[in-house]
Amino acid sequence: MGNSASSRYLEIAEALRQSILDGEYPIGARLPSESDLAAHWSASRGTVRQAVGLLASEGLIGSRQGARRVVLRQERRHSFQQLNSFAQWARAMGSEVASRILTRTTRPATAEETARLDIAPGSEVLDVLRLRHLDGEPVLVERTAYTDWVAPAVRALPEDCVSIMDSIAAEAGIVAHYGEHLIDALAAGSEDARLLRVRRGSPLLRQRYLTYTAAGRPIEWTDDRYRAGTVAFSVSNSAAAAPLERHAAPGVAGH
Amino acid sequence: MGNSASSRYLEIAEALRQSILDGEYPIGARLPSESDLAAHWSASRGTVRQAVGLLASEGLIGSRQGARRVVLRQERRHSFQQLNSFAQWARAMGSEVASRILTRTTRPATAEETARLDIAPGSEVLDVLRLRHLDGEPVLVERTAYTDWVAPAVRALPEDCVSIMDSIAAEAGIVAHYGEHLIDALAAGSEDARLLRVRRGSPLLRQRYLTYTAAGRPIEWTDDRYRAGTVAFSVSNSAAAAPLERHAAPGVAGH
Repeated sequence: MGNSASSRYLEIAEALRQSILDGEYPIGARLPSESDLAAHWSASRGTVRQAVGLLASEGLIGSRQGARRVVLRQERRHSFQQLNSFAQWARAMGSEVASRILTRTTRPATAEETARLDIAPGSEVLDVLRLRHLDGEPVLVERTAYTDWVAPAVRALPEDCVSIMDSIAAEAGIVAHYGEHLIDALAAGSEDARLLRVRRGSPLLRQRYLTYTAAGRPIEWTDDRYRAGTVAFSVSNSAAAAPLERHAAPGVAGH
Repeated sequence: MGNSASSRYLEIAEALRQSILDGEYPIGARLPSESDLAAHWSASRGTVRQAVGLLASEGLIGSRQGARRVVLRQERRHSFQQLNSFAQWARAMGSEVASRILTRTTRPATAEETARLDIAPGSEVLDVLRLRHLDGEPVLVERTAYTDWVAPAVRALPEDCVSIMDSIAAEAGIVAHYGEHLIDALAAGSEDARLLRVRRGSPLLRQRYLTYTAAGRPIEWTDDRYRAGTVAFSVSNSAAAAPLERHAAPGVAGH
């Protein structure tokens, strides 16, 4: 979304995506040619090519050069809610999910939490340790710090609450609209190892994230650790919309 | 980008982002109030709030509730090119980067490569094994399959070529415009362990990705493995533009 031309391309891609999802172009159908699309949208061939390329990169249409594109897939990519809610995601793929809050502790925010959550130094957070099972296997340990305005809603939940995000949305109107995610790998510590039933030092996939309301107010800062081999994250990234970045870990290369 | 209202919010966010990057609102300056922005853009308060919230989630402006937002940061987030080029990224943070192509082999594509690269079964790919150092330390092993139309440009490069992406762009006009990335963790195998100088079984951060030209033509399918603790990936994700998804690994939960 670097300029109006690139917004235009996202707009055309979204309209085509919607037509595919609505079944206007069923699987196996051919999209109109680039020049027909360009004429229909009063857009340049280059802009149409970017829009079509984006849909190809999403796997919705084939990527063959030259010929008109064929529709390959009609499912919607999974939703923002499914990323935020492990429970919604697990159910959508037909898996059984179980969750247990192991501890809930009010404590002073760390320096990192103070910065991430944009709260005053010395503020307290509600610290929640939670274990999630998928089809009977422990796959995910969550360590979350909730800010004070969110804490009461979380404190009120039963310990086997399946989705904290869904519950605080339904019961307190607290809804996540953005997230800033940091993904890396690390070795299981002793608590991780015990909860996930792996050996200490085993590889874990870590996803730390900060979620925000639509108004940009931080809700929570979380450290989620998945047993390696259970989950992967996918990210679409393009020159026009580049949400994915590489960062040096603290202490690496002079950082 | 679910509908025109959400494109509108991205458009406003981009204009504000540009004003901040251009120095129209320097660090410490206050943005206009939500109602002034809404009037200026003939947009609803909700749309403006989403745009402003997005900039807050990017850390460009403060996230305080109520008051007008203060500009916190003026650097552009790092570019698409810096994600694709490890060398550009390393140099941008002032690190010394060294790369070595260890092997280049032409071989039949695997079933996965055939599907990912959208090539005919039985096609050959150029398989490149490459080791990258950051400030003298081995941090990344890359295993890349290039399709036949890209292979000659890669085969022509010297083995200490610092950036394959930059070189094939400059010398053969092959430029990546999209990428589809899969990020997970795994244990180092014996080749990984030897090259990265870690023990077998040590945690690695894996980034597999497919890059495409602007026309949606696949360029390469790569399996990059970073020593844990050297690199993290960040992703911005919102209800309006949700590029990040969670996937069950093959074999997990009935998949």
